[in-house]
Amino acid sequence: MTIARKKITIVGAGFTGATTALMIAQKELGDVVLLDIPQLDNPTKGKALDLLEASPVQGFDVRIVGTSDYDDAADSDLVIITAGIARKPGMSRDDLVSTNAGIVRSVCEQIRRVAPDTTVLILSNPVDAMTYAAYQALGFPKNRVIGQSGVLDTARYCTFIAEELNVSVEDVRGFVLGGHGDDMVPLVRYSSVGGIPIESLIAKERIAEIVQRTRVGGGEIVNLLGSGSAYYAPAASLVQMAEAILKDKKRVLPVIALLEGEYGYRDLFLGVPAVLGGGGIEKVFELELTAEEQAALDKSADSVRAVISIVASGSSN
Amino acid sequence: MTIARKKITIVGAGFTGATTALMIAQKELGDVVLLDIPQLDNPTKGKALDLLEASPVQGFDVRIVGTSDYDDAADSDLVIITAGIARKPGMSRDDLVSTNAGIVRSVCEQIRRVAPDTTVLILSNPVDAMTYAAYQALGFPKNRVIGQSGVLDTARYCTFIAEELNVSVEDVRGFVLGGHGDDMVPLVRYSSVGGIPIESLIAKERIAEIVQRTRVGGGEIVNLLGSGSAYYAPAASLVQMAEAILKDKKRVLPVIALLEGEYGYRDLFLGVPAVLGGGGIEKVFELELTAEEQAALDKSADSVRAVISIVASGSSN
Amino acid sequence: MTIARKKITIVGAGFTGATTALMIAQKELGDVVLLDIPQLDNPTKGKALDLLEASPVQGFDVRIVGTSDYDDAADSDLVIITAGIARKPGMSRDDLVSTNAGIVRSVCEQIRRVAPDTTVLILSNPVDAMTYAAYQALGFPKNRVIGQSGVLDTARYCTFIAEELNVSVEDVRGFVLGGHGDDMVPLVRYSSVGGIPIESLIAKERIAEIVQRTRVGGGEIVNLLGSGSAYYAPAASLVQMAEAILKDKKRVLPVIALLEGEYGYRDLFLGVPAVLGGGGIEKVFELELTAEEQAALDKSADSVRAVISIVASGSSN
Amino acid sequence: MTIARKKITIVGAGFTGATTALMIAQKELGDVVLLDIPQLDNPTKGKALDLLEASPVQGFDVRIVGTSDYDDAADSDLVIITAGIARKPGMSRDDLVSTNAGIVRSVCEQIRRVAPDTTVLILSNPVDAMTYAAYQALGFPKNRVIGQSGVLDTARYCTFIAEELNVSVEDVRGFVLGGHGDDMVPLVRYSSVGGIPIESLIAKERIAEIVQRTRVGGGEIVNLLGSGSAYYAPAASLVQMAEAILKDKKRVLPVIALLEGEYGYRDLFLGVPAVLGGGGIEKVFELELTAEEQAALDKSADSVRAVISIVASGSSN
Repeated sequence: MTIARKKITIVGAGFTGATTALMIAQKELGDVVLLDIPQLDNPTKGKALDLLEASPVQGFDVRIVGTSDYDDAADSDLVIITAGIARKPGMSRDDLVSTNAGIVRSVCEQIRRVAPDTTVLILSNPVDAMTYAAYQALGFPKNRVIGQSGVLDTARYCTFIAEELNVSVEDVRGFVLGGHGDDMVPLVRYSSVGGIPIESLIAKERIAEIVQRTRVGGGEIVNLLGSGSAYYAPAASLVQMAEAILKDKKRVLPVIALLEGEYGYRDLFLGVPAVLGGGGIEKVFELELTAEEQAALDKSADSVRAVISIVASGSSN
Repeated sequence: MTIARKKITIVGAGFTGATTALMIAQKELGDVVLLDIPQLDNPTKGKALDLLEASPVQGFDVRIVGTSDYDDAADSDLVIITAGIARKPGMSRDDLVSTNAGIVRSVCEQIRRVAPDTTVLILSNPVDAMTYAAYQALGFPKNRVIGQSGVLDTARYCTFIAEELNVSVEDVRGFVLGGHGDDMVPLVRYSSVGGIPIESLIAKERIAEIVQRTRVGGGEIVNLLGSGSAYYAPAASLVQMAEAILKDKKRVLPVIALLEGEYGYRDLFLGVPAVLGGGGIEKVFELELTAEEQAALDKSADSVRAVISIVASGSSN
Repeated sequence: MTIARKKITIVGAGFTGATTALMIAQKELGDVVLLDIPQLDNPTKGKALDLLEASPVQGFDVRIVGTSDYDDAADSDLVIITAGIARKPGMSRDDLVSTNAGIVRSVCEQIRRVAPDTTVLILSNPVDAMTYAAYQALGFPKNRVIGQSGVLDTARYCTFIAEELNVSVEDVRGFVLGGHGDDMVPLVRYSSVGGIPIESLIAKERIAEIVQRTRVGGGEIVNLLGSGSAYYAPAASLVQMAEAILKDKKRVLPVIALLEGEYGYRDLFLGVPAVLGGGGIEKVFELELTAEEQAALDKSADSVRAVISIVASGSSN
Repeated sequence: MTIARKKITIVGAGFTGATTALMIAQKELGDVVLLDIPQLDNPTKGKALDLLEASPVQGFDVRIVGTSDYDDAADSDLVIITAGIARKPGMSRDDLVSTNAGIVRSVCEQIRRVAPDTTVLILSNPVDAMTYAAYQALGFPKNRVIGQSGVLDTARYCTFIAEELNVSVEDVRGFVLGGHGDDMVPLVRYSSVGGIPIESLIAKERIAEIVQRTRVGGGEIVNLLGSGSAYYAPAASLVQMAEAILKDKKRVLPVIALLEGEYGYRDLFLGVPAVLGGGGIEKVFELELTAEEQAALDKSADSVRAVISIVASGSSN
């Protein structure tokens, strides 16, 4: 029996994709295929080579190739989709959604062809809707089509809490439920520092400010950068999920999953706590929510549903 | 300005001490001095050399020396005391306490001489009382005399919870308060998996069993081994605390601290949540306890006080 | 497609076996089965549990079980054999060889039964002969039966060189050829620091002393310890080889391989440089040796052949 | 005694600077100050925040701040300078050198003011000359002014060798001497795989091709990317050097050092093997070169001297 390396394909070789490649290589999760469109073939190869040349000094030991050929992604153990355009001035939200849904669909058709047994992680925005688009185009079981939003939102939330208390971020636990957007639902009740609920450590108004800052956390970075958006924390979030799957870790993480009755929703992709392991989403946890929390989640679900409906209508074209 | 390596002295080169040395070296926290009594000078040197010879393949890069000369511990940034005898058949608890208190005191007198500005971590058993003995002998401020018990107890508690739910131990948070013994107080309310309270995931009776297994966790290992006691998890616990101090991490961890009014206790060393950083114990958190929890903690405090009184009386000799 | 964890079985739960388990867990190479004889079932379970309880604080996330039942080793991706007795006072070398060959054979018969497609790493002593015994009993292709000696010998050699020059051990490269014993052949020509040959950095006589110290490196530890032998560096060496195989790293390491013509030897297990990857020993490098080096290697080969002949004759019983 | 975190300031918050910040944070070498010009204050803060928000998922635990205020760099343990412009179309080499020397000088004047005891690592291009400019402006002892080129060149060289032989890059050792440019001198004699000289593993002509590819390794990436230049491997190289200094590792690495007689050169900054530790450049190794190698190094030294003369003349303005 020969033991083979794992293979991870990252579609979209922008800053997020390339940073994701770096972090996967650093953890030696497997060989990396960095894939982008043919027009970007050379820059993609350049980034892959630059990453590879970091290996002797970083001490990692995997192959990294840049390509625009989906055949190089054949039999990938995991595919991570970061492709998509950013909203341009004058572009309507619906146009953005339709354009990115088209991109995600065309990527997924290729993935279905070359890696029919793989698991797919989606970051493309708006991510709840793009996960739905991917699910449609892939035709995979729901456990193998997973969107990322809650890991990133939670990371930001925990960063702010650690900063507020001047304690190690390692001891902060938080939990963000719902869609990736201003309606996300950071669960304050389930947030703690070293096991101690933050409600006994931070004043109520400050918590409210931290929750609000979390909700607009992506926008805060966009505003500071002036052009472009965050990619370090998004890439790190993808890699935490990738590691959970590739090492069958059974991590309990917030993921965007297809709900079929959980929390009272149906045919909706929404951020919920789940067990993430070698089988993808192995279990969804249903939390008991307060009336207030359920209302907030319902609102978030409505927002997501509205965006998904754009995708759904677009797919009938 | 020349940057110097940190220096960590481990007193007691038994299994726990040597494993602690390994884990400190693996994390490259600093150079290691492994110190034991003159009669064990050669074996101590042998263990240090064996550890050092692992460095090319493990990829760590620190000096490790074995010695019985306290001058080699001069100016240590941190001292970890694992010295002490195990209870022998026919030995009374009081005799054990007196013997180990004598050992800890004589170690601490040497430490005070060669490293008067250091911080001291104590594992020797019974640890609450030995931390008291060390505090007396060192004459250091209370923030620099720290006992280990809650990190280990919590680690065991979390291991059992992860096993129960078949989820990654990385997502389990728990909290154990009070003395290191059958009276320790695992705070079920503050225990969670991926942020979700375990009370909504595990049946009440199973939680009670897990709590009880945690309380006798040290004994479980002793019974299985037949001779000797646990050392992997104890060493790992010491190293987590050591890393928090040496890297000034501001970790929020349960530590044995001198209480001067907190939780209603005075002049008592007891396990409480604290911020552990470059200044040692930088802050003690006072949790709001339920009446039941406070009663359990009082019982634990009483047990600890009884053992400390043996040490206190012994020191007047 | 569900991604499964890898599984590594360690036979022999003594200090080396347990330390190997720790280091494999720390690297999250896969789940660990620590296996020893039925009479040691409880202590083996105790060590496994203690190791597992270190996971929350060490941050690793694998299962570790102790057992005496070979069925628990079923379908292991890798088996590491550390079992065997140490030479007792009054015991002849031949008796030691026969006893350990019997142990290794009986282990291998079980392994063949429960994990017929696995790869086997052998540390049991005398290792060249025990690798031969394992090869016989397993009936596996030669690439999947691998002995450890050169990685450890090289680690010691590099440690001594780094110490001599007061430089980081990370930049020292060395190479030890031949059998594991006083006849081993450290190749001075191929030893360097940051790429610089040690012959231009260290005086000839000092190099000779370092070479000699390397040859008796195992004995140096035995003498210091007083009872027992080295286990940290041996375990680390096994784990470096295990990682090369389990991650298909294509490492170039000295391994004990069955030679069938290489270096002019036939039907001999001897330490040679090889590519170690997912297919086990994927390639053996034949170095051009000087007459002096070839003579030293011949002498080492003779020693190994003599010990193997004891095993070979024993197997006809 | 309170243990403080180390502090590393990175001047220049472009891709290389930000990637360097990431890698320093991942290794928890200390708190990071990412510094750029006031006009880029917001983007610099944005990158720092994005990096910080990766910490909960990446598991690192340091502070990262973005700033344009040198006072935030006060008392840094290490300063890394990546600032400088890229050559624009129509710009002469002399103009590039003068412009970047001006930038480096003005950075160094600030550093001298706020962190007079620090050590400075320079990456700005052309690096040999910029290290000279920094040395002049800082007025620090030569051991604390260090340029990076050989670590990166060697990393590329080793990457190509590993690829050629399909072996792990961990076992490839190479050595590149001289200036960072087409005249650099990869020392083939000192290049090995698992200790085996590459001359016995790779055909002469292929080695020549690999050497040539190494010499133009930076240009290869530039050509592929279309716009911009490499930053992953350069950042990783800086971080390897930073770690050597901050952990006092005594690594043996190629660094750009001020030569005062070594190799027959005087008042020249050139890439040579050195011991890098807590005192910066603690020792320079003088290799015995063949006539051919010495000629190649002389040629490289001439190129460097020519560029330095532009800086030197510029400084008299």
